[in-house]
Amino acid sequence: MRVNGVSYRTIWLEGSTVKLIDQRQLPFRFEILALPTYEETAEAIRNMTVRGAGAIGVAAAYGMAQAALRAPAAAFEATLDRAAVLIRATRPTARNLFYAVDRVLGALRPLTEVDAKRARAAEVAQAIADEDARACERIGEVGQPLFGASTTVLTHCNAGWLAFADWGSALAPVYRARRDGKHVAVFATETRPRGQGARLTAWELAQEGIPCTLLPDSAAGHLLRQDRVDFVIVGADRIAANGDVANKIGTYPLAVLAHAHRVPFYVAAPTTTIDLECPSGSHIPIEQRAEEELLWTTGLTSDGRLERVRIASENVAACNWAFDVTPAELVTGLLTEQGLMDATPHAIAGAVRAAAGRR
Amino acid sequence: MRVNGVSYRTIWLEGSTVKLIDQRQLPFRFEILALPTYEETAEAIRNMTVRGAGAIGVAAAYGMAQAALRAPAAAFEATLDRAAVLIRATRPTARNLFYAVDRVLGALRPLTEVDAKRARAAEVAQAIADEDARACERIGEVGQPLFGASTTVLTHCNAGWLAFADWGSALAPVYRARRDGKHVAVFATETRPRGQGARLTAWELAQEGIPCTLLPDSAAGHLLRQDRVDFVIVGADRIAANGDVANKIGTYPLAVLAHAHRVPFYVAAPTTTIDLECPSGSHIPIEQRAEEELLWTTGLTSDGRLERVRIASENVAACNWAFDVTPAELVTGLLTEQGLMDATPHAIAGAVRAAAGRR
Repeated sequence: MRVNGVSYRTIWLEGSTVKLIDQRQLPFRFEILALPTYEETAEAIRNMTVRGAGAIGVAAAYGMAQAALRAPAAAFEATLDRAAVLIRATRPTARNLFYAVDRVLGALRPLTEVDAKRARAAEVAQAIADEDARACERIGEVGQPLFGASTTVLTHCNAGWLAFADWGSALAPVYRARRDGKHVAVFATETRPRGQGARLTAWELAQEGIPCTLLPDSAAGHLLRQDRVDFVIVGADRIAANGDVANKIGTYPLAVLAHAHRVPFYVAAPTTTIDLECPSGSHIPIEQRAEEELLWTTGLTSDGRLERVRIASENVAACNWAFDVTPAELVTGLLTEQGLMDATPHAIAGAVRAAAGRR
Repeated sequence: MRVNGVSYRTIWLEGSTVKLIDQRQLPFRFEILALPTYEETAEAIRNMTVRGAGAIGVAAAYGMAQAALRAPAAAFEATLDRAAVLIRATRPTARNLFYAVDRVLGALRPLTEVDAKRARAAEVAQAIADEDARACERIGEVGQPLFGASTTVLTHCNAGWLAFADWGSALAPVYRARRDGKHVAVFATETRPRGQGARLTAWELAQEGIPCTLLPDSAAGHLLRQDRVDFVIVGADRIAANGDVANKIGTYPLAVLAHAHRVPFYVAAPTTTIDLECPSGSHIPIEQRAEEELLWTTGLTSDGRLERVRIASENVAACNWAFDVTPAELVTGLLTEQGLMDATPHAIAGAVRAAAGRR
């Protein structure tokens, strides 16, 4: 996708160095970071320099490749084990992260030569990134039947290209529709506490010239009552085998409100987000992040300084769950690279099988 | 209620000067402002130096008293008309504001002497303030049957004492329960965009030693799923004759979620918040405030400076409805100074009649 007219991916590998857009600085500063080691890549996942289900999957894959490329031959297996443990521990909810680590490790298992393993790790990591971008582009096509000549959607958090290698999940159909000449307008929740809607989605859409209107997370009910939204579309961090969806905190209330107002509620995600070993949403671990994310925020002063400020009373406790679970029965349809389907165990298992068959 | 151990009202009249707690500075600074003229009082309502349904009603009453006390005798009626127009235009949604202006004007109508009108205006304004405080204290008593030995409630925005002359509406039963030795814990939504939960409710509850846990507005769904909340209790800015409730944006989603999880949803308000001339929620004007409230925020730096920072991408539009409407069928019960009742036209009309009879 484009930044000031230049095409970028969210994250890529140069030699054994991971390069990525620093998402903590957006929308105030556009900076590319270079991370020479897998430890730094793991830390970038943990501290949300890179975030979004697909993008942290790709970061995990590249991190494993970094570990392989730089591990001393004598300690190759131990280094990869250490990298896998470190990377898996960065964030607990997004399926793509575990998928990526497991796939790189699995690809190395049949090999015996360290040099061959190094080359294979880099290849597989690149394949994961390329497949992520292609799957998202395909999700964009799959979603086109939902768009008329003029369509207004509501989205939550950022499931745009910054959340993947490219294109995005929930926003891929929006970008596709726009490039196909359809008129699309987006309502975006600001997405407290980290403001991915206000900071990332609004910024992404502006780069592509798509009209975006922000609203507080709490205003979605009033908006949906007004019959101005054609459908809600969000991403996913993990989809259980029964179709329950873990996604950014606040997704579940949107699904409940959409249902109350008979507004379709779609979830868009590549099949790498599906976890067939997870029977239902209640088995998905929900990350709790630091209270400080809610009690403090960072913004830009009118004279261009970034300042961190406390926005709550002192000595107050805070709950900061990063995700919630939307039950499958509230999901109108799932968009994956395998097509638009119902959020049923049968359809989900079929999509995962089909994706594995093509890989 | 207490601030650092000293009892305060939110707003009071000294001579013809309105004094009030500057709610824009809380929780970072506790400052009392002195407003010598009704124009300044009107501006304080508009810019939310004073906010909350009851408190702006009292401010409106005191503003009318200021106009009467300071109007030149030759231009007395014209000054009061001007004051009424200015004060009514400050904020469109809260019923209490219109109630207060109308009641002061109505009380002066039978009088002919300017001096008598001046004295009467000050008297009626003070009565409105005292009745507001007493009604809220009574709401605290009315709510006690909802509390066991240990009770956890969820509230939204600030319907505490800062939103009234004293005691509050939704929080009055919490304060009463605590003073009666019951254990009470409060979950408070931060209440974007102005953060009344994070800034005012958290601060108020800390002053009274009541445990408070903040959560993002979007996390109420995940919280309610966990069966940790005994009931939701919120205030109201206007209650229509049919029981529909206008309150802070985000109240309606809480009501929908509470209903989905079979958690009781109570609305607490003095009968001065009820507008029998408003047949239903769709007739309540919903204030839209400046986009800047969503796109910028003010907080305290770690070295004690207040800084205003932009927290969203540039060049993005924003919706900033201040209120939404909760349909009566989602309201488990209404707490007024006349008792706990169903949100039905019959019960509501009865409560208003009973209150008028006692006045």
